Amino acid sequence: MKLNADMGESFGAWTMGMDSTLMPWIDMANIACGFHASDPDVMAATVALAVQHNVSIGAHPGYADKQGFGRRHIDHTPAQISHLVRYQIGALQGICAHFNASLDYVKPHGALYNTMMVDNDCFEAVLAAVADTLPNTPLMVLALPDNRPHRQLAQQAGVPLIFEAFADRAYLASGQLAPRSRPGAVLDDANAMIAQVLQLSQHGSVTTLEGQTLSLAPDTVCVHGDNPQSVEAIKQLRKALTP
Amino acid sequence: MKLNADMGESFGAWTMGMDSTLMPWIDMANIACGFHASDPDVMAATVALAVQHNVSIGAHPGYADKQGFGRRHIDHTPAQISHLVRYQIGALQGICAHFNASLDYVKPHGALYNTMMVDNDCFEAVLAAVADTLPNTPLMVLALPDNRPHRQLAQQAGVPLIFEAFADRAYLASGQLAPRSRPGAVLDDANAMIAQVLQLSQHGSVTTLEGQTLSLAPDTVCVHGDNPQSVEAIKQLRKALTP
Amino acid sequence: MKLNADMGESFGAWTMGMDSTLMPWIDMANIACGFHASDPDVMAATVALAVQHNVSIGAHPGYADKQGFGRRHIDHTPAQISHLVRYQIGALQGICAHFNASLDYVKPHGALYNTMMVDNDCFEAVLAAVADTLPNTPLMVLALPDNRPHRQLAQQAGVPLIFEAFADRAYLASGQLAPRSRPGAVLDDANAMIAQVLQLSQHGSVTTLEGQTLSLAPDTVCVHGDNPQSVEAIKQLRKALTP
Amino acid sequence: MKLNADMGESFGAWTMGMDSTLMPWIDMANIACGFHASDPDVMAATVALAVQHNVSIGAHPGYADKQGFGRRHIDHTPAQISHLVRYQIGALQGICAHFNASLDYVKPHGALYNTMMVDNDCFEAVLAAVADTLPNTPLMVLALPDNRPHRQLAQQAGVPLIFEAFADRAYLASGQLAPRSRPGAVLDDANAMIAQVLQLSQHGSVTTLEGQTLSLAPDTVCVHGDNPQSVEAIKQLRKALTP
Repeated sequence: MKLNADMGESFGAWTMGMDSTLMPWIDMANIACGFHASDPDVMAATVALAVQHNVSIGAHPGYADKQGFGRRHIDHTPAQISHLVRYQIGALQGICAHFNASLDYVKPHGALYNTMMVDNDCFEAVLAAVADTLPNTPLMVLALPDNRPHRQLAQQAGVPLIFEAFADRAYLASGQLAPRSRPGAVLDDANAMIAQVLQLSQHGSVTTLEGQTLSLAPDTVCVHGDNPQSVEAIKQLRKALTP
Repeated sequence: MKLNADMGESFGAWTMGMDSTLMPWIDMANIACGFHASDPDVMAATVALAVQHNVSIGAHPGYADKQGFGRRHIDHTPAQISHLVRYQIGALQGICAHFNASLDYVKPHGALYNTMMVDNDCFEAVLAAVADTLPNTPLMVLALPDNRPHRQLAQQAGVPLIFEAFADRAYLASGQLAPRSRPGAVLDDANAMIAQVLQLSQHGSVTTLEGQTLSLAPDTVCVHGDNPQSVEAIKQLRKALTP
Repeated sequence: MKLNADMGESFGAWTMGMDSTLMPWIDMANIACGFHASDPDVMAATVALAVQHNVSIGAHPGYADKQGFGRRHIDHTPAQISHLVRYQIGALQGICAHFNASLDYVKPHGALYNTMMVDNDCFEAVLAAVADTLPNTPLMVLALPDNRPHRQLAQQAGVPLIFEAFADRAYLASGQLAPRSRPGAVLDDANAMIAQVLQLSQHGSVTTLEGQTLSLAPDTVCVHGDNPQSVEAIKQLRKALTP
Repeated sequence: MKLNADMGESFGAWTMGMDSTLMPWIDMANIACGFHASDPDVMAATVALAVQHNVSIGAHPGYADKQGFGRRHIDHTPAQISHLVRYQIGALQGICAHFNASLDYVKPHGALYNTMMVDNDCFEAVLAAVADTLPNTPLMVLALPDNRPHRQLAQQAGVPLIFEAFADRAYLASGQLAPRSRPGAVLDDANAMIAQVLQLSQHGSVTTLEGQTLSLAPDTVCVHGDNPQSVEAIKQLRKALTP
């Protein structure tokens, strides 16, 4: 079970995240591409850090909305979605060229990720952009109890998929993440997080907020290392996953 | 003698230039990359237009300053220059991937171009970015009476150079362009522009504002097609250059 | 019947509209405030032009989205709406101070205008911002067959309202503007536009696309002068309205 | 001796500074206005915090350069300087209106502050903007051994001045701040900082890096509270200054 994390979300003089502390403990770095966060200098520093720790590099494109950090939905046509994803993938490739590094996958950010998971026009637009710019390179999507519709569209586009679950978020019976406003939606406790990931890893299932067992078969779990406590929890998770 | 022009400088709802009218008459399109002008949608439309007319595509990176249109000098370290050029080259490549098009050259824009021509640290930073992202692809620079220092640095970086003159700008004895504030600095008359380009093409020289003959050996001349009159003048120039 | 028009929508090196040609023929200038369009220099030039032609100045705040020109809906909390309206009103007042000019009204732009008309939380947030920053100054809203709900909320907030109709847009029986995708939605013909405004002015009614007569009592009509033909039509409308 | 500090420099999802911890210990809050940092929501939260702690509010306008945090010089005409200062002062007034708060002074930020202190055209442009928008309200400038030229220009413009020194920066014999690259340029030690401020307060002088005594008569000292140590030092300074 690989650990992925959003990285390189600083911007100019503003720092976000604990990238240099967290990078040694993850497998896959979702690197922001300058639209919802980051700039060419931050991207270069983040790629250098990923290369140093032998971490896979993924493009993490988002909406062009720094003030909203790419978390606000903004209407786009499918063609606009494809163009903004192509642009950001290419931009990160341009930075990677300096480090002889290459992109291993693409994971959309925030509102773009959420829209992609529920709007097939948007999903196909993302797939088209990945297929154009990174042939045979996978797109990371949310693991659902039934991902057959996404698998079918991705196959038509010739794009492999990677499925992710969330280490620190509670699930609903529907397979959706519990909204943050709901008590228990975020697993603050390191042990609870480790237990959820081990259950995903060993049993291919998750226990929902309502107490049901839900089948999920993720390839990777997303972790968040925003503060010393959460980075410490990820270190423990890393050790618990290592045979 | 090839004609190059800045293209794709619209942004969102704002239109600049007469790209669709001008594209059929030029050889090389310097396409803005989203920092001083343009956005992913404008870039896609501009690449499509260039492909349709079989025009060479060049990346036209600039400072991240839309309000100043990349014309204002902003201090950058050499590393920052390299990163922003890599980013913009990659971004345009990402858009080009959709059209199976590739980048034939790089020409920096505005204040970045001006700084590059007088500051060797900046020039080397641009060369490094081109060498990383587009091996064996040329950088376009200003033809000067003596380009030996630029040739030497470019050779060290392994980057070919293309030299450009300006079709519609008067020259000083120093080989610099006459500042726009000086009477006669801009050649508004189509015949004067055509005469200057033919002299460059046939005799490898230009007559300065002061009346001297200056040796210049450009590979291409830069033209501007901002209004119907200037596009008409470019059409006439095109015909005058065609054997 | 007063004529209002969106003005000052240029940005940096990009020009939009024919402000200097149109300004003499209108009564009220809705001046963009730097979020969806404009910058401090464009705002200063636009206020100077309005003052020169003795035209009322209105703040025209929009979402912070230059690439989308403020036309794309972006989710905001009511408090965020109030803050961005306060900010933009204040910014235009800062520019006006140099010209001893003052703001006569506020008219939100694009998606913010549309959201305000259908979402009372948003409408109340706009009212609160106007009440704070411009006591006793009116807010311009869309004239509907029944504006009682808007009147009631505005009264509670202590904000006067101005109602506007559109000179060049066809109406539906519901009182909504016909969507642009529908044939006949935009009145391209000067005579049709003049007839619609005269009917509004003299009879307090408009004839819908479906042929019904709808009661509307606007204080002002919005006109668009984007090209020489439309400016010419506005001149004719101006003359038709002058006793 | 009043303490002033830059406040409200967060932006969207990015946090900068320890505003809520620092605000109780300062007298004057220089509040960013959305160009080099901040947004309408951050501005509203910062004004609310200043009001709560009865701290004077100053507008802190900067260049429109978030990526460079307003620290990079960008060429502007004097008229452009005036417009951008008017815009930002007005914007903060718009936010203040909601809190029945008013602006007590203006202090330009970063590169704009530095340029203003050495370029009289820029200084006069700032003065003109303050005079227009905030009659009889002071501008804060750097206390120099000889501020007569600034006093004269300010008097002509009808703008009072406030002079500031820096609590945590070493001075050169010229009265300029020692460049950060020089050893000892930043006073990291709380006691050294307190000693410098007490010397300024009680003796109207500062001891330069070279060991000379330099006369300076500031009205306020600028403090920086970016981390728990520096906030703690400011608390001690506050107590040392309190009779």
